[in-house]
Amino acid sequence: MSGGGRPSEVAPRNHLHVPATDRTVHWGYFSKLLPPLVEVRSGDYVTIEVLTHHANDDAERMVAGDPGAESVFYWDGRRKGVDRRGAGPLAPTLFGRGAGEGLGVHLCTGPVAVREAEPGDLLEVRILDVRPRPCANPLYRGKSFGSNAAAWWGFHYKDLLTEPRPREVITIYEIDASGERDWAQAVYSYRWTPQTDPFGVVHATIDYPGVPVDHRTVEPRHGVLPGVRVPIRPHFGVLGVAPREADLVDSIPPGYFGGNIDDWRIGTGATMYYPVAVPGALFSAGDSHASQGDSELSGTAIECSLTGTFQLIVHKRDALAGTPLAGVDYPLLETRDEWVVHGFSYANYLAELGPDAQSAIFTKSSVDLAMRDAFRKMRHFLMTARGLSEDEAISLMSVAVDFGVTQVVDGNWGVHAILKKSLFSG
Amino acid sequence: MSGGGRPSEVAPRNHLHVPATDRTVHWGYFSKLLPPLVEVRSGDYVTIEVLTHHANDDAERMVAGDPGAESVFYWDGRRKGVDRRGAGPLAPTLFGRGAGEGLGVHLCTGPVAVREAEPGDLLEVRILDVRPRPCANPLYRGKSFGSNAAAWWGFHYKDLLTEPRPREVITIYEIDASGERDWAQAVYSYRWTPQTDPFGVVHATIDYPGVPVDHRTVEPRHGVLPGVRVPIRPHFGVLGVAPREADLVDSIPPGYFGGNIDDWRIGTGATMYYPVAVPGALFSAGDSHASQGDSELSGTAIECSLTGTFQLIVHKRDALAGTPLAGVDYPLLETRDEWVVHGFSYANYLAELGPDAQSAIFTKSSVDLAMRDAFRKMRHFLMTARGLSEDEAISLMSVAVDFGVTQVVDGNWGVHAILKKSLFSG
Repeated sequence: MSGGGRPSEVAPRNHLHVPATDRTVHWGYFSKLLPPLVEVRSGDYVTIEVLTHHANDDAERMVAGDPGAESVFYWDGRRKGVDRRGAGPLAPTLFGRGAGEGLGVHLCTGPVAVREAEPGDLLEVRILDVRPRPCANPLYRGKSFGSNAAAWWGFHYKDLLTEPRPREVITIYEIDASGERDWAQAVYSYRWTPQTDPFGVVHATIDYPGVPVDHRTVEPRHGVLPGVRVPIRPHFGVLGVAPREADLVDSIPPGYFGGNIDDWRIGTGATMYYPVAVPGALFSAGDSHASQGDSELSGTAIECSLTGTFQLIVHKRDALAGTPLAGVDYPLLETRDEWVVHGFSYANYLAELGPDAQSAIFTKSSVDLAMRDAFRKMRHFLMTARGLSEDEAISLMSVAVDFGVTQVVDGNWGVHAILKKSLFSG
Repeated sequence: MSGGGRPSEVAPRNHLHVPATDRTVHWGYFSKLLPPLVEVRSGDYVTIEVLTHHANDDAERMVAGDPGAESVFYWDGRRKGVDRRGAGPLAPTLFGRGAGEGLGVHLCTGPVAVREAEPGDLLEVRILDVRPRPCANPLYRGKSFGSNAAAWWGFHYKDLLTEPRPREVITIYEIDASGERDWAQAVYSYRWTPQTDPFGVVHATIDYPGVPVDHRTVEPRHGVLPGVRVPIRPHFGVLGVAPREADLVDSIPPGYFGGNIDDWRIGTGATMYYPVAVPGALFSAGDSHASQGDSELSGTAIECSLTGTFQLIVHKRDALAGTPLAGVDYPLLETRDEWVVHGFSYANYLAELGPDAQSAIFTKSSVDLAMRDAFRKMRHFLMTARGLSEDEAISLMSVAVDFGVTQVVDGNWGVHAILKKSLFSG
């Protein structure tokens, strides 16, 4: 962290920088108990480095030579750079995968506390800039890399046509680190083979994040997706605040607090609004993506380290009445041209599914339920923010609002609804 | 119908015009037994007038003075212009709603036979032009009108916040008949009240298409959606060929044969491909919309009479091998920039759900299943049309293909998947 502030009322806004290191990340979980790395004031700027939790799928391209990444992914027979990965038990572990059990996978940088934020407020997060993290290996100067895993939690996994079935496949994508080239391309792919981690645990599938892949044990397939250019949509799969309901929350299912929404629209120029659940809000960023399609079908996007610059603004609860943000108790996205609400199978699965919510949600995934939730949230927004009657809101939704499938891989599945601002230009 | 052709091999292409009248429409059903209105040759053009089945929601604006619409909607104590409305029994009817029972609601114009088309072929339908049908009432010169019904089959119906619950609401929208203004606006709305049709049947809900609404019995609400401009997306909710599985098929659930897909992308400049199921294909057009959002949440779009010009091209089954269309046994959309596959809860509900398929499908509606079907179809298209391996197809789908909710109101619910052609520009 760098930067700092003068406590005066008329002080200029601060701009802090939070690097990604073994001391600044929390891996696979959110927690209201985490001490904030820094505290900012409403209106301040913060630049946050985010590392992809898939960097060890190709450490030569995504870890080597990068001090921050090397500190995070460090793992020898005695020690891991970051021990806890997931919200599960530390030891002895239930499935024996490793500390935290991989019940939650995303490398998150944070949390950042916002001084004014109290439960009931809304935290506005303006995404001012998103940049790929350049590869630090001199062999690949000027490039950045990302990994797409077609994994066991993907929508396709039990529904494969070709042998061997099932299988997990990693595809490494390359992007231009300067951001000048607006597309990614595949470099090579390989099938996951059982990987033995430095503690001696064998990972037959991708069941624990950050396991170093021994490239002597996998067979690279070059020339995949020849000539295919994937438009880049750099964004953060995970962005949000700490939930109130539990001390350790698996980073995979999204909820009212944001988290792993996996909407590619949450990139440069977008603004997110999150209901603050705990004092200071405790904002974190993670799961950086170079690109993703609506549905994130295979289980991941192009998982790629990114650095984002954010402005954090607190809207006090008492000042929200009569504004478009009144009653917003869900993560809301605003872009230049659109408002987007995010529906989930369960709007607040942590509260709705009882003490076993964090495992139960994975048995209750449903696009149908997410569609219902997106409908209700868009109706709320149209009635509150635009002052429409319920009948007006329903007619407008039917003729002018587009509902899409955000993701079908995060336990609490998502449907988003897009409202064009230009509808109100008359 | 007008126009005609010379039978010579070198004859120029014909361009036929099919008006919408009581003699040229089939209302609420598809049937392989319908005699074709006209027969064209592969490559010929046909302009087809389509009337909205909601025109009687405001007959002054959508029927009066229009000879075609007046012939179709004619209904006095002795006679209806078009008796059968739906695929149900003629008389005595099960629910007593009227002939055909309203089991299927869309006014379709057709069918048009294509001489070369045989089962197993693909029918390519190029949509060259779509125009609103001008209001024929001199009071509203230069305008066209459409109706949005928030009806009992809508996604919202059992989930209303405000009283009275439940309720059905009609909102009348106005568009510019010249097409110069690219937006629609609401004119007024009213709540549906029990309507007594000219045969004496009381329709407490919108349970039969084309019931004349007595405007002395409803209360108009003016000034609804003030200042809201709905971008128009003129398109055909229903476009397709006759299914093979049954003699009378309810027009509501879409399937492999197309039908009521309700994708607003099926408009000017788009091309659809349909698997031919019966000799001559028997192409029909219906359910014309001025605009719709992805999901068609309230049960209908802006239902508005339109006239479309189409070119019909037969691709013989034997010539498809090795082309992007090989193995396409589902309705496929091509636009200038995109390929779009349409997934349904059941890809072919008529075959999959047995003898009671036409009622069973309404109890099995599922976005989750439609997502599964869209995934499979997009995988097929990527592997066949682009020659990708299954692993390449799945990775590309996850990082670059967008899945959206087409509709949640047509029994056989829909999810579409959008593949950008620019992906293959490298």
